[in-house]
Amino acid sequence: MGQRLVVIGGDAAGMTAASQARRLDGDLDIVALEKGRWVSYSACGIPYLVAGDVERLEDLVARTPQEFRDRHKIDVRLRQEAMSIDTAAGQIEVRDHEHGRTVRLPYDQLVVATGALPLRPDIPGINGETVLGVQNLGDAQRLLERNQRATARDVVVVGGGYIGLEMAESYLRLGAKVTVVDSAPEIMGTLDPDMGSLVRTAMIRHGIDVRCGSPVAAFEPGSVHLASGDTLNADLVVLGTGVEPNARLAAGAGIETGVKGAIRVNARQQTSVDGVWAAGDCAESFHLVSRQAVHVPLGTVANRQARVAGINLGGGYATFPGVVGTAVTKLCATEVARTGLNEWEAAAAGLAYVVGKIKATTRAGYLPEARPIVVKMLAERGTGRILGAQLVGEEGAGKRIDAVAVALTAGFTVEELVNTDLAYAPPFSPLWDPIQVAARKALGLL
Amino acid sequence: MGQRLVVIGGDAAGMTAASQARRLDGDLDIVALEKGRWVSYSACGIPYLVAGDVERLEDLVARTPQEFRDRHKIDVRLRQEAMSIDTAAGQIEVRDHEHGRTVRLPYDQLVVATGALPLRPDIPGINGETVLGVQNLGDAQRLLERNQRATARDVVVVGGGYIGLEMAESYLRLGAKVTVVDSAPEIMGTLDPDMGSLVRTAMIRHGIDVRCGSPVAAFEPGSVHLASGDTLNADLVVLGTGVEPNARLAAGAGIETGVKGAIRVNARQQTSVDGVWAAGDCAESFHLVSRQAVHVPLGTVANRQARVAGINLGGGYATFPGVVGTAVTKLCATEVARTGLNEWEAAAAGLAYVVGKIKATTRAGYLPEARPIVVKMLAERGTGRILGAQLVGEEGAGKRIDAVAVALTAGFTVEELVNTDLAYAPPFSPLWDPIQVAARKALGLL
Repeated sequence: MGQRLVVIGGDAAGMTAASQARRLDGDLDIVALEKGRWVSYSACGIPYLVAGDVERLEDLVARTPQEFRDRHKIDVRLRQEAMSIDTAAGQIEVRDHEHGRTVRLPYDQLVVATGALPLRPDIPGINGETVLGVQNLGDAQRLLERNQRATARDVVVVGGGYIGLEMAESYLRLGAKVTVVDSAPEIMGTLDPDMGSLVRTAMIRHGIDVRCGSPVAAFEPGSVHLASGDTLNADLVVLGTGVEPNARLAAGAGIETGVKGAIRVNARQQTSVDGVWAAGDCAESFHLVSRQAVHVPLGTVANRQARVAGINLGGGYATFPGVVGTAVTKLCATEVARTGLNEWEAAAAGLAYVVGKIKATTRAGYLPEARPIVVKMLAERGTGRILGAQLVGEEGAGKRIDAVAVALTAGFTVEELVNTDLAYAPPFSPLWDPIQVAARKALGLL
Repeated sequence: MGQRLVVIGGDAAGMTAASQARRLDGDLDIVALEKGRWVSYSACGIPYLVAGDVERLEDLVARTPQEFRDRHKIDVRLRQEAMSIDTAAGQIEVRDHEHGRTVRLPYDQLVVATGALPLRPDIPGINGETVLGVQNLGDAQRLLERNQRATARDVVVVGGGYIGLEMAESYLRLGAKVTVVDSAPEIMGTLDPDMGSLVRTAMIRHGIDVRCGSPVAAFEPGSVHLASGDTLNADLVVLGTGVEPNARLAAGAGIETGVKGAIRVNARQQTSVDGVWAAGDCAESFHLVSRQAVHVPLGTVANRQARVAGINLGGGYATFPGVVGTAVTKLCATEVARTGLNEWEAAAAGLAYVVGKIKATTRAGYLPEARPIVVKMLAERGTGRILGAQLVGEEGAGKRIDAVAVALTAGFTVEELVNTDLAYAPPFSPLWDPIQVAARKALGLL
């Protein structure tokens, strides 16, 4: 046996780092600690499990502990929670919930992949039985059990972000009356309000009741009271109120943390303490456009960071250049995506910009399948560099953001994007792709 | 009135150059000569017009001559054909087919946008009444008239490229028995044969009879004879046998031509003769990956070149950096796309490469909407620079090529693409987008 690598946290980041390290180094002694009952699952799939698109909870599990043991020689230990890290001694205190005992586990290298914790605002009644989160497979199981007992008739989703929208669609499709509540003046706070308002209009068209600008005052069995004085019926409340980095364990061990309390890492995913690495929702990222540290709790970022950590741990060399903040979601026929900086993020980074905002269609306008799409693109004054883009449209709109994400990463100007050879055929796009039309609009304003 | 700008050819390139010049210079005297009856139309839309998705032929016309006159002050002259250019005198000899006369038209600046001509191989019977092309709206009208008389029962499409596939789908949807004939050993010659064979398999699955490796020996009313000895029934033959640059007029005027006889242009779209510009299917492009002159007769390239020419003609400054050879098409549920260089193109450019080829799904594998996709990516040995990608898949596959096209244009390595922040949510993609999985595979082989 070679050195021992311990991974704390058995979800995307932890298991990706472990598998990647194993691929490069067959001799490593790899132990993965997971405090829950599942490893390596897609939390992003929970809305589709709840809606019934995915048959069984197990379908969201990419690999079982047994598969990790058999195929990757990774010793996955479920229901084992790391309680503290002694970085001087190179040991972890581990609580074994299965056997009710505490042991000390030595390590040579350590990956902290403790993920994120759901934000549960301090509102009366939030711990009630009908108020459920959407964070992990335990939550998924509770939501499924709730569905099996009786289909919820009145569902209130708190939080109009990605997960909120996806859960709203799931319950709408199950036949419930759905209300989405957001304390901010507009939903989708990661978009600019003019784009968020397009999403809200679409939600209302899809039959969702949307209440913005009024926080929840209290939860009660059967109802939700808003600060505005309104009361909503609610058999079930789903919380999509965001997450924060789960970095207390690392911070308690003296490992440096940064933005929002996330663990600070360098480009190789090393923390401030020698031999300790971090990846995923518990760690910081570097934003390639704002050039600032950010916390982006997304599975894509977690996997990319973990791949880099794993390569380095396996004896290779890799760096993670950073993120541009790409995200996409879907609510019934409506697709929503963003990348880079929105207006307030650009302003906060001290960047001046012009805005190219256009309406187009997803396919050639003369085809019956052509669907509306609105694209908003920000370009830096002076340089013309693309700073970010947001889009709201229907079928075929969402993944168009990828071309902008690559362009942003490459530091393209809007003119360079206009001149890029994107794919065209009438069933796929108008001759000028909508993202290029937005780029042309911005170019004209520079 | 300012200087006179004459545009020869009233399709995408010509009218885009004219409109763009007008936008920047309100004083230009702009005349556009078009030998046919239509300007500014989508020839790419013809298969969808034939299939009945597009109601009227006029729906494919983006702007009428009247609209160009009224809104853009562009004097569009239909049925007027430029017969010769006297570059020394700055005059064009124009045949007015409407009034049966020939006039001389002076110009200060000239844009040659004469497009491409369909290749009609020298095969007995190719000029028969049942053998139709798909090049312009005149062809479209003939195809529609043919449909109106009687639905063709047996359709033979000659040429298994983009237009061949699209026309095959159109007639399949109209209820015909469709055979696609290609003289090459595999269809889709712009893909590598291993990818082309995936398309052929899909075509057969969709109910199309595919005959490769045997050229047509002769056309007869009612049948097509192959060199192999086989005879196919054919009420209707559709030619999708490619095009060549229509540069005879320019060459006759002593304007320099290059690859495949296309007009040579610099980055501002200027030809070798002062005051004469060229854009679109009659002109060369520069390939950003092979760094060689190429002829890419696509509407997207035509429009981009013409935009650049128009800006320069209007007094601005713009350059067209070049193309990466992106294209996409669709045959029933099958989507096909490519960008950059394929294997033989890379070899011809003297580039050594590794191939990352993978099977994945278009969406999270646990969703019922997940569809198969195969991605093949070429990366340069040594540098790891992306050289090209090809993909064949189902719904949601095709436009993924855009992210690779941008990455190619930016000179990304496969590792840089792996680290790029692409959009993920289960209804849009697996956590690692298929194009990144292909990039990872190539990276592992470097």
